[in-house]
Amino acid sequence: MSELQQLGQQAKVASYQLATAKTESKNKALLAIADGLKTRQEEILAANKQDIDAGRANGLTEALLDRLLLDESRLAAIAADVRSVVELPDPVGEVLEGRLLENGLRLSRRRIPVGVMGVIYEARPNVTIDVAVLALKTGNAAILRGGKETVNSNLVLTKVIQDALAEVGLPQHAVQYIENPDRALVSELLRLDQYVDMIIPRGGAGLHRLCKEQSTIPVITGGIGICHLFVDASAELDRVVDVVENAKVQRPSVCNALDTLLVHEAVAAELLPKVAARLAESGVELRACDKSLPVLADCDVNAVPAGPEDFDQEWLALILGVKVVSGLDEALMHIREHSSEHSDGILTNDMANATAFVNSVTSAAVYVNASTRFTDGSQFGLGAEVAVSTQKLHARGPMGLKELTTYKWVIEGDYTVRG
Amino acid sequence: MSELQQLGQQAKVASYQLATAKTESKNKALLAIADGLKTRQEEILAANKQDIDAGRANGLTEALLDRLLLDESRLAAIAADVRSVVELPDPVGEVLEGRLLENGLRLSRRRIPVGVMGVIYEARPNVTIDVAVLALKTGNAAILRGGKETVNSNLVLTKVIQDALAEVGLPQHAVQYIENPDRALVSELLRLDQYVDMIIPRGGAGLHRLCKEQSTIPVITGGIGICHLFVDASAELDRVVDVVENAKVQRPSVCNALDTLLVHEAVAAELLPKVAARLAESGVELRACDKSLPVLADCDVNAVPAGPEDFDQEWLALILGVKVVSGLDEALMHIREHSSEHSDGILTNDMANATAFVNSVTSAAVYVNASTRFTDGSQFGLGAEVAVSTQKLHARGPMGLKELTTYKWVIEGDYTVRG
Repeated sequence: MSELQQLGQQAKVASYQLATAKTESKNKALLAIADGLKTRQEEILAANKQDIDAGRANGLTEALLDRLLLDESRLAAIAADVRSVVELPDPVGEVLEGRLLENGLRLSRRRIPVGVMGVIYEARPNVTIDVAVLALKTGNAAILRGGKETVNSNLVLTKVIQDALAEVGLPQHAVQYIENPDRALVSELLRLDQYVDMIIPRGGAGLHRLCKEQSTIPVITGGIGICHLFVDASAELDRVVDVVENAKVQRPSVCNALDTLLVHEAVAAELLPKVAARLAESGVELRACDKSLPVLADCDVNAVPAGPEDFDQEWLALILGVKVVSGLDEALMHIREHSSEHSDGILTNDMANATAFVNSVTSAAVYVNASTRFTDGSQFGLGAEVAVSTQKLHARGPMGLKELTTYKWVIEGDYTVRG
Repeated sequence: MSELQQLGQQAKVASYQLATAKTESKNKALLAIADGLKTRQEEILAANKQDIDAGRANGLTEALLDRLLLDESRLAAIAADVRSVVELPDPVGEVLEGRLLENGLRLSRRRIPVGVMGVIYEARPNVTIDVAVLALKTGNAAILRGGKETVNSNLVLTKVIQDALAEVGLPQHAVQYIENPDRALVSELLRLDQYVDMIIPRGGAGLHRLCKEQSTIPVITGGIGICHLFVDASAELDRVVDVVENAKVQRPSVCNALDTLLVHEAVAAELLPKVAARLAESGVELRACDKSLPVLADCDVNAVPAGPEDFDQEWLALILGVKVVSGLDEALMHIREHSSEHSDGILTNDMANATAFVNSVTSAAVYVNASTRFTDGSQFGLGAEVAVSTQKLHARGPMGLKELTTYKWVIEGDYTVRG
């Protein structure tokens, strides 16, 4: 049995114990983790300093180093998040439906944990705590594999979690970390279907593609947002400018930020200069189609011709694709072809077009007259967010605690046989 | 663009039309299919005869030939099933939840079709109609690939479906069939994630494994039942015999039939002879553990020592594994190790043990005092059954119409921006 198979087997055994653990006991573990982040702060920060020093020596950019960094206030924020998960309702045990069948069988569908989650993520040590806590709250065991740049931080954080579990009498193997940096172990994890029930990748498109390609375990893909707003002819143009600015500029580095603006040709000449003027204030670069470029060329904005791949980009930066379309149908066609099915919206005062847009667009989040920036677990009131799914099965959009559960059918009879 | 990519693209385009089709229009297509099965009966039976003749020439067994066979009464039964799907409620459009957020955004979760389903199945021509009809009812496009032994039947049936679609104004590409018998096309279908949203294999363990291994598209695995009943010390033994007989003998060839009987050691000496006597009436062969074999050896039954793999078999035949266990804990351990998480049950009069069993067993269907034979869409009142899932994500157990849908979030505002 390989090292990873052993981790898998241990996780599976732990998952059985966790599945029947009381909410009270799981919450105690979470509180012990939050406490541990405070009491063992020195140990954690020392390990993180090792990671930072090694990262600097290896020439990581300051932006990347900042992602790795833990300090007293960041640890306190992570601990506060843990305490807020304690306050969320435990979804496990909920009866989703139930009925008495004609033959006297009592049938119900009961919410249970998924079992064992494999989580693969990049160099952000906070994810170690976030994911472990959401897994534990929902009665799942987790096998974690973070970026190699944060291995020291992650190992100490895992120890804090495991000690907390031991303290409250829950199995320490409920949360395990793959320490060996060999990338082959990621591939092995993706094929550990004997023990692992679900893979959650948290990272860029490459990681999601790798998981889709290699995994024999169901994967939650998502997190990549190529997001659109279509400005219909009837939209209130001054208010459109506010929404476009918010969607593009408020936090350009996240998946729900706007990537492509589609503009009805009837209002392009009036709207585009307004949008250009506002976005220029924030230094947004525009990648413009043939029809929009002439209008934008007269504006005080950085506008260049859109290249052939520019409408398939998740920009994660202050760049925006701009395309003039002949109307709703062309907008829908463009979205079908280019959207990653994350978040797409229409800005319109026309009821029929709003309805047609909502009915036709199959993205995880479909907006009418709002910024795409709302696609997020806390904005949707889910209390927590594990990932944003853009696939069709299991869960779509922001995934909260419920999305880390599944169900079983429970059938109770009186020595009942099938006729 | 390959032949299959073209099928995929056509299916995707059709899926957009289907997603917004009215229930009335989808039901008309289903009725036209049912009518076509009757009016084009001669054509269908002629194609089926080609398959049967070829199968016989290729030395297929009579049992297999019987699976391929269509005749007037079987076609009528299939058409009747189609008409019964017309009567089922259309799940698409249901609002699963909704609320008004503090910022005035109206948030709702709306049920929508999955999109494009890829269905790979063995040589049963009825599946072509079954699956197409369930897909259409739920607004999904389908790409079908059946066993090569039924290709002539399947092509005519697909034509009947496509003509029915054309007749009612729905896109013919909503249901397409992969005609080319090259197995490489199955592998290509499994990687067509650009167009296909969900793969449903209907066949044996080998097909499910192939799909898990090769697919980059989410797969619904299942259909393999290694099912257990644990007879607790407090069970009413005479009634136990009825349940065990029903679970094993009523229809041994299906996935919810009993495979392994676990017996509490306190009642083994009394129960096993009763079970043996009853099962001997149907010619069941027992594969017995060390502890049960001596008891069974004195009975008038065909009992042999269980081999090392006998507790990991889905028998699909009149064979039953028998194992004596020391109590509930050992039974749970055995089920964890050997169950395929399809259907497992306890027979007991002890409330605490029933509760512990239900809480601990994570199978798709968990039974108390009932035969495992009830795990089935029609028994559970789902009206139809596409597959029985034993995986954890998306759906578990019998999958009805709802399980062929997903959801999207719809967010309506008033040019609302995130603060």
